[in-house]
Amino acid sequence: MAKPRNVVVAQSGGPSPVINSSLRGVVDTCKELPEKFGTVYAAWHGIEGVLTEDLIDLSGQPAEEIALLSTTPAAGAIGTCRYKIKKGADEDYERIIEVFKAHDVGYFFYNGGNDSMDTAHKVVKLAAERGVELVATGVPKTIDNDVGDSEFKLIDHTPGYGSVARYWALIVQNANEENRGACPSDPVLVLQAMGRKIGFIPAAARLADPGREMPLQIYLRESGLTLDELADNVNAQLKTDGRCIVVISEGFDVGELGESKDSFGHTQFSSSETTVEQVVVNYLNSKGLAARGSARGQVMGTDQRDTAIYASTVDIDEAYRVGQKAVLIAAEEGSGWMSTILRDPGPVYAVRYDKVPLEDVANSERSFPEAWIAKGRIDVTDDFVRYARPLIGEDWPKVPLVDGRQRFARIELNLARKKCSKYVPQAYRK
Amino acid sequence: MAKPRNVVVAQSGGPSPVINSSLRGVVDTCKELPEKFGTVYAAWHGIEGVLTEDLIDLSGQPAEEIALLSTTPAAGAIGTCRYKIKKGADEDYERIIEVFKAHDVGYFFYNGGNDSMDTAHKVVKLAAERGVELVATGVPKTIDNDVGDSEFKLIDHTPGYGSVARYWALIVQNANEENRGACPSDPVLVLQAMGRKIGFIPAAARLADPGREMPLQIYLRESGLTLDELADNVNAQLKTDGRCIVVISEGFDVGELGESKDSFGHTQFSSSETTVEQVVVNYLNSKGLAARGSARGQVMGTDQRDTAIYASTVDIDEAYRVGQKAVLIAAEEGSGWMSTILRDPGPVYAVRYDKVPLEDVANSERSFPEAWIAKGRIDVTDDFVRYARPLIGEDWPKVPLVDGRQRFARIELNLARKKCSKYVPQAYRK
Repeated sequence: MAKPRNVVVAQSGGPSPVINSSLRGVVDTCKELPEKFGTVYAAWHGIEGVLTEDLIDLSGQPAEEIALLSTTPAAGAIGTCRYKIKKGADEDYERIIEVFKAHDVGYFFYNGGNDSMDTAHKVVKLAAERGVELVATGVPKTIDNDVGDSEFKLIDHTPGYGSVARYWALIVQNANEENRGACPSDPVLVLQAMGRKIGFIPAAARLADPGREMPLQIYLRESGLTLDELADNVNAQLKTDGRCIVVISEGFDVGELGESKDSFGHTQFSSSETTVEQVVVNYLNSKGLAARGSARGQVMGTDQRDTAIYASTVDIDEAYRVGQKAVLIAAEEGSGWMSTILRDPGPVYAVRYDKVPLEDVANSERSFPEAWIAKGRIDVTDDFVRYARPLIGEDWPKVPLVDGRQRFARIELNLARKKCSKYVPQAYRK
Repeated sequence: MAKPRNVVVAQSGGPSPVINSSLRGVVDTCKELPEKFGTVYAAWHGIEGVLTEDLIDLSGQPAEEIALLSTTPAAGAIGTCRYKIKKGADEDYERIIEVFKAHDVGYFFYNGGNDSMDTAHKVVKLAAERGVELVATGVPKTIDNDVGDSEFKLIDHTPGYGSVARYWALIVQNANEENRGACPSDPVLVLQAMGRKIGFIPAAARLADPGREMPLQIYLRESGLTLDELADNVNAQLKTDGRCIVVISEGFDVGELGESKDSFGHTQFSSSETTVEQVVVNYLNSKGLAARGSARGQVMGTDQRDTAIYASTVDIDEAYRVGQKAVLIAAEEGSGWMSTILRDPGPVYAVRYDKVPLEDVANSERSFPEAWIAKGRIDVTDDFVRYARPLIGEDWPKVPLVDGRQRFARIELNLARKKCSKYVPQAYRK
C-alpha cells in the first residue's frame, strides 16, 4: 500500500463568509483518511504562499480552532491573494512543482473561481508532463455566483453566494425600516451591491421582499437601462409611494458620468474616486427629485463578504461539504476535478455533491439568465426567487461570542521549515 | 379623580437600532396606568405628524406587534423627521397646542437629542402661557452619544450608542479577518464612521480589540491630525505589520482635499460627492503606499443605525427603561423633565434611571473627553474601553426570523380622524 502523501490547500480571490467552512471540510476529511493523506498544509495567502514556500501546518492546530473555522468569515485564517499566474509564466508553474516535491505534497486543493480552476488545471498538466504524482482538485467558491455555465449544469451555485444573498435579504429589510422612517426628508436610499460583471448579488435584494410590498427597484448590470430611465423610475415610485429603495450593481453602466472622474484610466469601484452609487445619488439630487427631500446612498463594501452573522447556515453546510467532497474525489478519482453542487429537479430543495472536470469549469462562463429579469428590467422574477431562496436558509448562524466579541478561529502561523531556495514570483520581478 | 388624558409620542432626528424599544417602553407603561393615560398616539414622522395632525393610534395595535418593536430597528414603525421648528416660528408651536387640545392630549413624549429636548421645553413653556394642561417629557436617544454634558452628570450615555458601538466592535473584527486575509494586495482598509461632530462612534472600534492585537488606527474628529500625519502613521504600521485598518470619523478634517469637490457649497458626508474615506484612500494610494498593494475603503452608512442583529441587548433593555421611566416621570412629577440613565460609581456596571430638567439638557453640549484620547492620538484609552464595554452587552439579540426573513413589527397606519383645519408647516411654505 502506498504511503500517505502531504496536502496543500490554498484560497484564491475575494473571500466569502464561508470560505473557511470549505477549509474545515478539507482538513476534517483528510484526517479521516490517514492512509491517504499526511500533513495538511495551507499556503499562506494562496498560490503566493506556494511560490514563496510559506506553508502553514494545519494538522498541528487545536481541534477547537479548526471547528471554529465554520463561523469565521473571510480569509484571515490562511489568507488569500489576487496573484494571477500570467500566461507563459512557466517558472511560476515549475516552482509550484518544485515546492510540492520538496514537501512530498501529493494533493493540492484549490479553493476559488474560474481562474483558480484554470490554474489548478495547468498545474495538473505540468505535473503529468514532469512525471510528478500530484492530484489537484478544485473547491468552488465565489460570492458572485459566476463559476460554471449559464445552464447550471456544471454547478448550481457556488458556496459564498448564499451568504451574500442572505446579507442582501436582511440588509434591505433594515434599509426599508430606515427609508420608511426617514422620509419625507430622505425619500430615496441607494445601495450599491458588489458584482461588477454579473447580477446575482443585487438580484438577491428581492429576497428581502418576495411579496413585493416595498418600493424596491433593482438595477443589475444586465438591466441595460440608462441613468435617465433610472431617474424616471425613481420619480414614478416617489409619486406612488413617497419613497424608493434602489439597489444597484457596482457594474451598472452610468455612461460618461462614471468615467470622467477616474484618474487611473480604468473604471474603479469600491475604492474609486466616484462610485456608481455617488453618480446615481448626485444625478437624482441634481434632477431635484421629491419636493423637500434628497437621495442618500451607501456603497456596501467588503462587509457583504466578511460578515459572520449574515452567513447562511445552508451555505456554511454546503461549503463544508464541497470541501469534504473534493477530498473524497482526490482520494478515489484522481486528479483534474472540481467538486460541485448540483440541484435535484422538483419543488423541494435538495442538492447532491458531484465532480466536474477542472477544464470544463475553466473554459465556462456564466451569465445571469435573461429570463430571470422581470419586465421593466428593475426587478427579478419569481423563478429567480425560487432559485435563490433556499440558499439563504432559515436561521441565524451560531457565531460564538466571548466577552461580547466574536470568537473566531485562531490559526497559528507555524510555517513549515523551508527546503527550497528563495524565489521571487514572476509578477513581482522588476 | 381626574379623567385619563391621551398621549402623543414622537421621534426626531436619525434613528437607532433601539429607538423602537423606547417606543415600546412608553406604550407598555401607559397601558399599565389607565387612570392616567388614555389612547396612545404616535405622531407619524415626528413633530411633522403633529403639525399635519397625522396621529397613529397605537393603543389599537396587536400586542404582538408592540412586543416586536424591541427588535425592530430604525424608525419605520412610526417615522421620524429632521423638521426643525425655527426660532420665532410661533405658528408651528401654536399649531402643536391646537392639535393636542383637539385630541385631548395631556401627555407628550418626545424621543430625540438636544434639539428635541429644546423643542419639548418650548412646548412646555407655551402650554403654560396658554393655560393648557400638558405634560411634556423627553426620552433620550442618539447614536452619537452627544446628548447632555461632558461630565456625564445629566446622562451617562444615550440609548442607541451602545448598539452602534457594538456594530463597530463586531464589524471591525470582521474587517480584521478581511484585511489579514487580503494583504498583500490590499494591505490598507479604511472604514468611515458616522459622527461628524463627536468621536464616540469611531472610538468604539477599539472594543473590537481591547488587547490591541490588530494593526488598528482610530481617527476621531478630535484627533487634530493632518492627512500627512495619517499617511505617515499608516506607512509606519505597514512596516511593522504589513497591513493596517483605519477607522476614521466622517468629521475628520482632511483640509482642502475634502472641500474642493463639494458642489453645494457646504461639506457633505454620506451622500456627498467626496467622502473623507475617499479622500484618505485616494491620498494613500497617490503616495504609493506599500510595494505591491493599495488602500481600499468603505463608508459605513445607515446600516450602523438600522441593523437589527448588531443591536446591543443592554441597549435594547436600557432604551425600554428610559421610555418606561419617562412615563412614570410624567405621571408622578409633571412636565419639563427628560428621563435619564446615570451610572453608579465603582467597578461593576450598574445604572439607575432618573430625571433631569429638559432645559438643562437643551442648553448642554457634550464633547469627547480629551483624557480618553491616547498618546499619539490614533487610539482611545482603557478608560474609554471601561466606559463603553458594558454598553455592547454579551449576546446576540433575539431577532426573530420567519421564512428566512427578519420579522419586524408591523404597525398599521390607522390614523385618528382629523379634527383641525389643514396646516402647512412653516418651513414648507413658499
